[in-house]
Amino acid sequence: MAKHAGSVFCVDVTGLEPDSGQPAYARICERIRAAIVSGALAPNARLPSGRTLAQDLGVARNTVDWALDQLVADGYIVRRRGAGSFVAARLPERDAPPLTPARAAGPVAETEPPRLSRRAQALRAYPGHYTAASAVPFTPSLPPIAAFPRAVWNRLLQREAGKPGDEYWQYGASNGLPALRSAIAAHASAMRAVRCSPEQVVVVTSTQQAVELAAKVLADPGDAAWCETPGYQPVQHCLRAAGMEVVAVPVDDSGLNVEAALALNASARLAYVTPAHQYPLGVEMSLQRRKALLAWAHSHDGYVLEDDYDGDYRYLGRPIASLQGMDEHGRVIYIGSFNKILFPGLRIAYAIVPEALIAGFVDAKHAADGHTALLMQGALAAFIHEGHLGRHLRKTRALYDERRIAFVEQAAALADLLDFGPAIAGMHVAGLFKRELGRGLDDRAIAETCARAGIVVHPLSKYGASERSGLVFGFAGATRADTRAGLAIVRRAIEAALAHDAAN
Amino acid sequence: MAKHAGSVFCVDVTGLEPDSGQPAYARICERIRAAIVSGALAPNARLPSGRTLAQDLGVARNTVDWALDQLVADGYIVRRRGAGSFVAARLPERDAPPLTPARAAGPVAETEPPRLSRRAQALRAYPGHYTAASAVPFTPSLPPIAAFPRAVWNRLLQREAGKPGDEYWQYGASNGLPALRSAIAAHASAMRAVRCSPEQVVVVTSTQQAVELAAKVLADPGDAAWCETPGYQPVQHCLRAAGMEVVAVPVDDSGLNVEAALALNASARLAYVTPAHQYPLGVEMSLQRRKALLAWAHSHDGYVLEDDYDGDYRYLGRPIASLQGMDEHGRVIYIGSFNKILFPGLRIAYAIVPEALIAGFVDAKHAADGHTALLMQGALAAFIHEGHLGRHLRKTRALYDERRIAFVEQAAALADLLDFGPAIAGMHVAGLFKRELGRGLDDRAIAETCARAGIVVHPLSKYGASERSGLVFGFAGATRADTRAGLAIVRRAIEAALAHDAAN
Repeated sequence: MAKHAGSVFCVDVTGLEPDSGQPAYARICERIRAAIVSGALAPNARLPSGRTLAQDLGVARNTVDWALDQLVADGYIVRRRGAGSFVAARLPERDAPPLTPARAAGPVAETEPPRLSRRAQALRAYPGHYTAASAVPFTPSLPPIAAFPRAVWNRLLQREAGKPGDEYWQYGASNGLPALRSAIAAHASAMRAVRCSPEQVVVVTSTQQAVELAAKVLADPGDAAWCETPGYQPVQHCLRAAGMEVVAVPVDDSGLNVEAALALNASARLAYVTPAHQYPLGVEMSLQRRKALLAWAHSHDGYVLEDDYDGDYRYLGRPIASLQGMDEHGRVIYIGSFNKILFPGLRIAYAIVPEALIAGFVDAKHAADGHTALLMQGALAAFIHEGHLGRHLRKTRALYDERRIAFVEQAAALADLLDFGPAIAGMHVAGLFKRELGRGLDDRAIAETCARAGIVVHPLSKYGASERSGLVFGFAGATRADTRAGLAIVRRAIEAALAHDAAN
Repeated sequence: MAKHAGSVFCVDVTGLEPDSGQPAYARICERIRAAIVSGALAPNARLPSGRTLAQDLGVARNTVDWALDQLVADGYIVRRRGAGSFVAARLPERDAPPLTPARAAGPVAETEPPRLSRRAQALRAYPGHYTAASAVPFTPSLPPIAAFPRAVWNRLLQREAGKPGDEYWQYGASNGLPALRSAIAAHASAMRAVRCSPEQVVVVTSTQQAVELAAKVLADPGDAAWCETPGYQPVQHCLRAAGMEVVAVPVDDSGLNVEAALALNASARLAYVTPAHQYPLGVEMSLQRRKALLAWAHSHDGYVLEDDYDGDYRYLGRPIASLQGMDEHGRVIYIGSFNKILFPGLRIAYAIVPEALIAGFVDAKHAADGHTALLMQGALAAFIHEGHLGRHLRKTRALYDERRIAFVEQAAALADLLDFGPAIAGMHVAGLFKRELGRGLDDRAIAETCARAGIVVHPLSKYGASERSGLVFGFAGATRADTRAGLAIVRRAIEAALAHDAAN
């Protein structure tokens, strides 16, 4: 039997900071993958047993197993019954076409790691790439794709693609297709009380791009941005990548604590908020706080980035109007996205900007990527103008509400373990571990345990420092039966963690 | 008859710096438009006559007429036969749906202009938005859309859209669809002697996005980038927007002058070059210069951004291999785009990055916009894998070559006015005004004269300082008859400018 190859990557794994922000299994997974890709682990090499690896690495057996499962799923490792795990003979991507015959490998690698910019180092410290997300309960932020009317969409797409003329084929305007801008202005003003003309709409690819354009247009490197904490991390990465300093502002039951923010750094240039439905806690920003935020912006030459990512979904009470609609001084950049309410692969979102900032945003969009892909803009404009967006929202609002109710009913059985936040809007709900369970409960470990059982919940600590740890559940993608089974798994995972803590 | 409204915008127009980088007609056009949009020029207000405007503004009558023509075409102005020009009763976009009834206008405008960031101010100084480009001879950089096999594309698009599974509908990987990355790696290695694995390919939306990611990953604000001068301006805007200092490096018959660049700033972090076919002069970078550039990068910890925007089109002589393929030290980021060789509305391009930089690029792409739209990536992967890209390139290579030959033959008749640069590759050719015509020939004015006659040529001065002025012609979009008629218009425009200069 070949000597196992554990030593090659053990050092690397233990060398990684445990609080690098990735769960342990993911770090192990990544290191093994890197060793395989670099050739340090040769094709067909036998891997040490899961138990040996767990001992060498000083982690739970489960953690190692989960890393190996992932590598098997990705094609880096094969399991042979009774013989153990082996590096795959051919690597998942490497055996595709490329490489000119003259030279076997890519350019000779430098021996030194490259000198990355400070912003790239900041991004490395908070990795967050998408990999294809899995649609299992309770993945947050993932709309149930099955509810999307693909046939309707594909018919519109084909119809638009077949139109004569070059509108979708030539260069387009940097601010977006006029038909789509007017559709968005009409939708946002009707549904969210946004006040705008189509000229104020800038079509972008994603919420992140909207935030990045705002940072570029309004902030110089070193300027500060208030961010909700806990809050949506990709936007914070984006602000850091634009050279901004992220000021972590606590969130309470009334949303972003504006007083705390003023005390931390009153001269911030931007404030990024999710006032309709805070991500991830689910609270709504109070009217008083909204007014305080707008007053700060007006008096301190600040701007508010209002991310209304799921403002179309409100199940109880009066939908709260957008901050943008309350703003009297051109201080709010309103951001909406079709990637969350239609399907994530689409990549169309929008910013509605004060008139004085239109030119700056259009310049920045032009410099960033010219303009957004045209045919998809055309199909989306038709989808909205012909009433399909309205129909889809009505249908999914009813569907999600049903699932929300099922979730709330069944989650009551976990009331001994979790305090659930408000569940009146959007597609997710946060549950905080009850105070009496103690401070030490590791939400990442619990989320990993759930993941091994096929359930995706996000640990609250993933969203930045918060007083209590907890779990974030997406309810919109789970049927009643899924919810029941999923919550049972969550209970077992929490109980196992409590038992483990008690034993230590 | 109502008093004309000239005074409202005359001051604004003359207040603009004449060398702001925009042609005079565009500045006038923009100011009148702004006066209309702001309400300073009321609906239905009569405009002064073209002659009066020209006198007030101190510009040629033609310049004013051209600005007014544009405004008529855009719907801001209407002409009434015998009565003159009037502000339109309803503005082109303003009369679309939006605006909640409660309030007639958007948020109250601030009286002060907003404080833009330094990078946004830099972008404002070099405006370059796309507006829908017109496909007339000799628009540079615009592929003849009619040559693209739309029916094939639409069939693949429909087929991919109809596939079961969620691959195109859920979140995708930030570096791109695996099928597309392997197709790109195979294409670039076969056609351009690029050496890479699919893992090194990062799918982006545009050349500009690839450049922006490189700047983010490798450069800190204030770091310098060598740029070819004359050269492609949108990339320079993009580097400035990322906080970089653009070092204007002269280009001669052997491409970017590396010695001059070293003298200007040897410690630059990036060098942006178009070695296969310099944009816009059309020269090829010599082997010696290529080696010098790579040696600089290796010895000074610099990186080369190789924009191979039309490397697939080479008509005479041996195609020169990519710089990336010569690089032994992981110092080249190779950039290719399907927006130029297929159709601009697509928005798919790619960077091929050294292995050591993959993670940094993927982080930056994730922060910028998550990932590129998925269905289009799927259709493009199928288009390449199934041989349609190869067929399209063979077909268009033959077509463009025929048009290139027609252009070269007929351009010989302008040899008394223009020295034409090399025409052995790509889709455009540059013509420099002959030295004996004098230094003062205004290429922007000549380009404007041509534009009024329906011919688009780019003034060379648009691409940054160059020793001589001249015109850039895209030949790929013009039939033999178009070329003949177009070149006759160009001759008349140059001769008119010469006569005008002689008279003053």
